[in-house]
Amino acid sequence: MAKDRAPQARRVTIKDIAERAGVSIGAVSFALNGRDGVSEATRERVRQVADELGWAPSTAARSLAVASTEMIGLVLARDPDTLGIETFYMRFIAGMESELAIRGYALLMQLVPTPAAELEAIAKWRATRRVDGVLLVDLTPDDPRVDLLAASDDLPTVVVGDASVADGLTSVSTDDDTAMREAVRYLASLGHRRIARVAGLDRFAHTAVREVAFLDEAERLGLSSTIARTDYLPESGRVATRSLLDEADRPTAIIYDNDVMAVTGLSVAMERGLSVPSDLSIIAWDDSVLCEHTFPQLTALRRDVVGFGAHVVRRLLDLIDGAERGAYLDETPRLVVRGSTGPA
Amino acid sequence: MAKDRAPQARRVTIKDIAERAGVSIGAVSFALNGRDGVSEATRERVRQVADELGWAPSTAARSLAVASTEMIGLVLARDPDTLGIETFYMRFIAGMESELAIRGYALLMQLVPTPAAELEAIAKWRATRRVDGVLLVDLTPDDPRVDLLAASDDLPTVVVGDASVADGLTSVSTDDDTAMREAVRYLASLGHRRIARVAGLDRFAHTAVREVAFLDEAERLGLSSTIARTDYLPESGRVATRSLLDEADRPTAIIYDNDVMAVTGLSVAMERGLSVPSDLSIIAWDDSVLCEHTFPQLTALRRDVVGFGAHVVRRLLDLIDGAERGAYLDETPRLVVRGSTGPA
Repeated sequence: MAKDRAPQARRVTIKDIAERAGVSIGAVSFALNGRDGVSEATRERVRQVADELGWAPSTAARSLAVASTEMIGLVLARDPDTLGIETFYMRFIAGMESELAIRGYALLMQLVPTPAAELEAIAKWRATRRVDGVLLVDLTPDDPRVDLLAASDDLPTVVVGDASVADGLTSVSTDDDTAMREAVRYLASLGHRRIARVAGLDRFAHTAVREVAFLDEAERLGLSSTIARTDYLPESGRVATRSLLDEADRPTAIIYDNDVMAVTGLSVAMERGLSVPSDLSIIAWDDSVLCEHTFPQLTALRRDVVGFGAHVVRRLLDLIDGAERGAYLDETPRLVVRGSTGPA
Repeated sequence: MAKDRAPQARRVTIKDIAERAGVSIGAVSFALNGRDGVSEATRERVRQVADELGWAPSTAARSLAVASTEMIGLVLARDPDTLGIETFYMRFIAGMESELAIRGYALLMQLVPTPAAELEAIAKWRATRRVDGVLLVDLTPDDPRVDLLAASDDLPTVVVGDASVADGLTSVSTDDDTAMREAVRYLASLGHRRIARVAGLDRFAHTAVREVAFLDEAERLGLSSTIARTDYLPESGRVATRSLLDEADRPTAIIYDNDVMAVTGLSVAMERGLSVPSDLSIIAWDDSVLCEHTFPQLTALRRDVVGFGAHVVRRLLDLIDGAERGAYLDETPRLVVRGSTGPA
């Protein structure tokens, strides 16, 4: 008898409704909670399916829905003077916002001076139920924020970074390994034998991923490789480039960890009377509008940063709406060849 | 007798305490509400002065303090794909955040597609007391947001723009008129007789201020002047520059309304075989890291955008804490001469 009753006894979830109605979990949640963000037709359909399945909101779910802050949180542990140098975060945030806008959500953002203050801010948000969920960016190996949040489902969390540092939290990452290997192979195909990488901050997990891929692919192809470490700042890119070009056996191609440093590489080459690309090839990662408007234009590893921000937010809103944790891959950056790279 | 009692009868305000203690209104508010953001010494001193003056929090003020959301709001009516092109907003937001962090506040940000949606978002925040105050940016003449907010003190508001469009709301502006005239005089002093301006969006109030100053100062100095209108996007800067350089009597100097378009001006000059600055002088407004890393580096009108964001937030927090409305001037952008300008 228990067996016969089981299908009815199991509580119908919004996931069941989503599957039956052929819409996202988020759409079901919005439709059933009477929030903006779904069409009237979808709302009608979702309600019909919910009735068919005999869905009833649980008390907990109901109170959660009522208590929803309709905000998601992002804490950035950055120096205010350096945050505005790259356009990455503004594009990423713009993408987040475009997705939040559809659902009537807003972004709660806090800038703090140190990773310790970031941890404190997140802990406070969790304790006070200030936001419905948080995004973690600038992940480090053994990240204390992951330690804080992975053990419970108190605060829905999406890690913007590799699953290997997410400890089971939902993660959205890009395959930097594949992208870096593509860039190195491209330089090798142009005949470059000595290549260099101007790297970003050491402590970030994705810096290590790119570094291993760079060194490994160079070795595999028999290229000599050098790495200069920086903090992403333009002045550091300038210093690193000068130092690389001072080497007796100077590299004929350099891959930079952001767009701004790649531009400084271009100006250092010019001040030395080196022609780009005939004396030096330059690749920027990520691509940006900046790369399209230098002379020559910069070859770059390109990804849709606005789309990436939107993707991450969709995963977080799904999680808030009851989806299971998962590890997701965003699109892999692809090489866009412009005027700054050529035969060695 | 009434006269004798008057000094005691008038309710002591936190402004009185601030004046007596020689600290800001914000510091008094924080000290008395037990919030972070003031030193223990200041907190002690403020409490002592409050006791001396016989201060007692009003019920309204007390309930306001309790109901404080410790958030301020910013709505941007921008296309997500274009927001990340300039670094202005990221730097401005970074400055805002640095000041908010001191007081334990967070920034609630919402990106919407149209000015109408922006108005709706602000009206909703006001109705639901979602934030303690809002900032208005990208002001237009007869701005409907100003109409909505100027009439009452329901939602403390700071207009980031000229007092002439703030209708009595607190405003923080920069003197773009003076800055533009300085740039034009500088070009005239280098012997330029034909100058052009590549302007940003027509609908913004500050675009008109810059335009009038440009035309007027050029006329005063007997220079011929041309204006090309754009939407701030790099491709528009490129098209505008080409069109200006196609004129029979082409300008020998161009002032651009943002950094990204000035960089495209540089690359258009290069593709035409024109040398900068000997064939064409270029000035960017605002200055940014980008301007320092092109070749040649760009002469620019510089202001501390991070400091500007912090200043605006200080005015808003003071307003939230009970300060009177006022019109304030931020620092005037000043000309930083680099390699992109020279004799005509």
